[in-house]
Amino acid sequence: MWRGVCRRHNFVEYAVPTLQPTELFVEKSGPEIVGQLFNFADKGGREVTLPPEATPYVAHMVGAKASALKRPLRWFSIPQCFRYERPQKGRGREFYQLNADIFDEAGITAEVEILALTIDIFRSFGLTKDDFAVRISDRTLWLEYLAATGMTAEQSMNVLQIVDKWEKEEPAEIKKKLEAIKTGSFEKIGAMINIKSIDALEKILSEMNAEKLLERLNEWKALIADLNAMGLKDFVQVDLGIVRGLAYYTGFVFEVFEKNGGRALAGGGRYDNLIEKVGGPKMAAFGMGLGDITLLNLLTEKKLLPNLTTSCDFYIAYMGDAARAKALEILPQLRDAGFSVEISLKSLNFGKHLKAADKAGARVAIIIGDDELNKGIAKLKSLSSGKETEAPLEKLVEYLRSAE
Amino acid sequence: MWRGVCRRHNFVEYAVPTLQPTELFVEKSGPEIVGQLFNFADKGGREVTLPPEATPYVAHMVGAKASALKRPLRWFSIPQCFRYERPQKGRGREFYQLNADIFDEAGITAEVEILALTIDIFRSFGLTKDDFAVRISDRTLWLEYLAATGMTAEQSMNVLQIVDKWEKEEPAEIKKKLEAIKTGSFEKIGAMINIKSIDALEKILSEMNAEKLLERLNEWKALIADLNAMGLKDFVQVDLGIVRGLAYYTGFVFEVFEKNGGRALAGGGRYDNLIEKVGGPKMAAFGMGLGDITLLNLLTEKKLLPNLTTSCDFYIAYMGDAARAKALEILPQLRDAGFSVEISLKSLNFGKHLKAADKAGARVAIIIGDDELNKGIAKLKSLSSGKETEAPLEKLVEYLRSAE
Repeated sequence: MWRGVCRRHNFVEYAVPTLQPTELFVEKSGPEIVGQLFNFADKGGREVTLPPEATPYVAHMVGAKASALKRPLRWFSIPQCFRYERPQKGRGREFYQLNADIFDEAGITAEVEILALTIDIFRSFGLTKDDFAVRISDRTLWLEYLAATGMTAEQSMNVLQIVDKWEKEEPAEIKKKLEAIKTGSFEKIGAMINIKSIDALEKILSEMNAEKLLERLNEWKALIADLNAMGLKDFVQVDLGIVRGLAYYTGFVFEVFEKNGGRALAGGGRYDNLIEKVGGPKMAAFGMGLGDITLLNLLTEKKLLPNLTTSCDFYIAYMGDAARAKALEILPQLRDAGFSVEISLKSLNFGKHLKAADKAGARVAIIIGDDELNKGIAKLKSLSSGKETEAPLEKLVEYLRSAE
Repeated sequence: MWRGVCRRHNFVEYAVPTLQPTELFVEKSGPEIVGQLFNFADKGGREVTLPPEATPYVAHMVGAKASALKRPLRWFSIPQCFRYERPQKGRGREFYQLNADIFDEAGITAEVEILALTIDIFRSFGLTKDDFAVRISDRTLWLEYLAATGMTAEQSMNVLQIVDKWEKEEPAEIKKKLEAIKTGSFEKIGAMINIKSIDALEKILSEMNAEKLLERLNEWKALIADLNAMGLKDFVQVDLGIVRGLAYYTGFVFEVFEKNGGRALAGGGRYDNLIEKVGGPKMAAFGMGLGDITLLNLLTEKKLLPNLTTSCDFYIAYMGDAARAKALEILPQLRDAGFSVEISLKSLNFGKHLKAADKAGARVAIIIGDDELNKGIAKLKSLSSGKETEAPLEKLVEYLRSAE
């Protein structure tokens, strides 16, 4: 399903190495990350790890190959990721993560395309606007806002750490933290966190009348207008309470939440500095990550898990040795024509053949016995309707091709 | 490509865990295997490894779940495998391996189906009977033959180890080895190794006139007849010189060789005892394994590597803000209809749009500017022929759907 949606959005798949240098993650997240990794020294003494995420690898790769790549890039991957931490509901030690990124596109079309892809992933499973919402926020706006209230860049970064945990803590606790870093008005920060619409945003920013904030407001309006034009209005919410904990985000950020229960299902944002930071050229980037575990939990609860049955176009049933030889002759012709075909492993009676065809998930059973051989036909039995027709044995492939 | 062929043969894909207990491989291959593994103790003290192959895992899984599975099973997997050994041409430390197996089918249709699948894998890349050959042999026949010459089961197994290395060693060396295990006539074993046709096999077995050998000859004739019926005659060779080193094979075995150069490309065989050995019920199994590295080398030499370009159905180009809004409206409709669609990230001029459409691998560029908006149409430009047509903007999805 993930691959199918990414392909419809014309994203190109890349592979993520299973073993990566441990250094890659220390570089991005600091030495304390090592305690949460499945890392080891290989027999040649190399410090390697099973990756907990794909971003450091892809940032290095894009940076190193930048001059050889025709940009902008629309890339996705579905690596298996590993975290050595206590497993809990929604977080496992082993999980798949869909990553989709647009590299080297600074304009909001990157945001629009990644958000549209993210929403389509959830929609493709049958989830609706009643099941999930995308909350959009903006670290650039936050930093400009905090600067406009007189903070230094360092103070602002500290405040964002506090904002990230705002909803989980008591006001008294938050106020104590703000006092500790000697900046930030609880009320002014709280006002920003409570912004849940573009109108509320416009109101607060217009009052401040700072040029950079108004420029940013125009970006917001353009983004919302595009999302509306794509019919995605009902899926997105402005929510300045989201800031994403990771320091490398630089602009619009978002999280996808389950509407009832509030579990986070996906997240992402703009990170225009990371590729340069890891040794590549300055390059814009906007991306998202989406794990399989919370999605599987949600789909299970909503009874939306796809019914993963096997299916094929044809099951060839034969009765007798002469029919077997004919069946084996037809089989590769059908497969070469692109059909998915299973053949009976044994010469069975009619009833058992139909059971086997059903188990194989066949749409149509092609039945060949002595009678059919004599008449030069094959019986075709639809497994859904039970309807039987006859087809010429000699031109069976052409017949079935034109019948599709 | 591998997945596509497996799907046409109606094999069902299973996933292979990236981390497995080291014990699984010690159990199958002995403690000396550990030196060749990417193994480590995780932070909870569990001895785990990146797997060097998929067979122990799938044998355990099928054994454990036997009563819950609707058998026979036609299963495949494409795990990433790891071997800690000196990398050399054709053997890397990290590789992908296609595994396909039929479980719980004792009859030769399992052999026929796995061989047909194996051959189709190579054919699907454009390789022909001039490029590769499947050499088929038979460990059951070998063991019956050696028993008929008076050997014990243990002596026979020792002889098969010698046969496995026969072509790589000097006759004097082989004779010394046979003397060391006090059994086996160099000439009688050599005569069997030199059998390269069903007629030669029939001749040598008829002379021996042992009932079990003649029964086995009939299995051979049935197998070859089925392969002939499927049109695979030109791809397969009888070659009793193949015995496969691994002791767990129990019947027909095969290897796929490059015709010039003789590199092994794939191999497999029957292993009817393994599932019981690892704790499951007695269950027949026939399977194959095929690595990516030798295949990639061969395809590179033959200039048959698929041209992996990106491709999509449509690229939507807009010029101006009104057209942008319209383009964003059409975009999700086309994707929902199943088309793969890329949209211009920017408002460009006509020539740059066509370049971007070409880079996106689009078949058709859908062009919308102010003129088109006024006329209520979209321009469709074929990227291959350059031909331009017009389509109604309001019913674009229906128009494009019916045009496919």
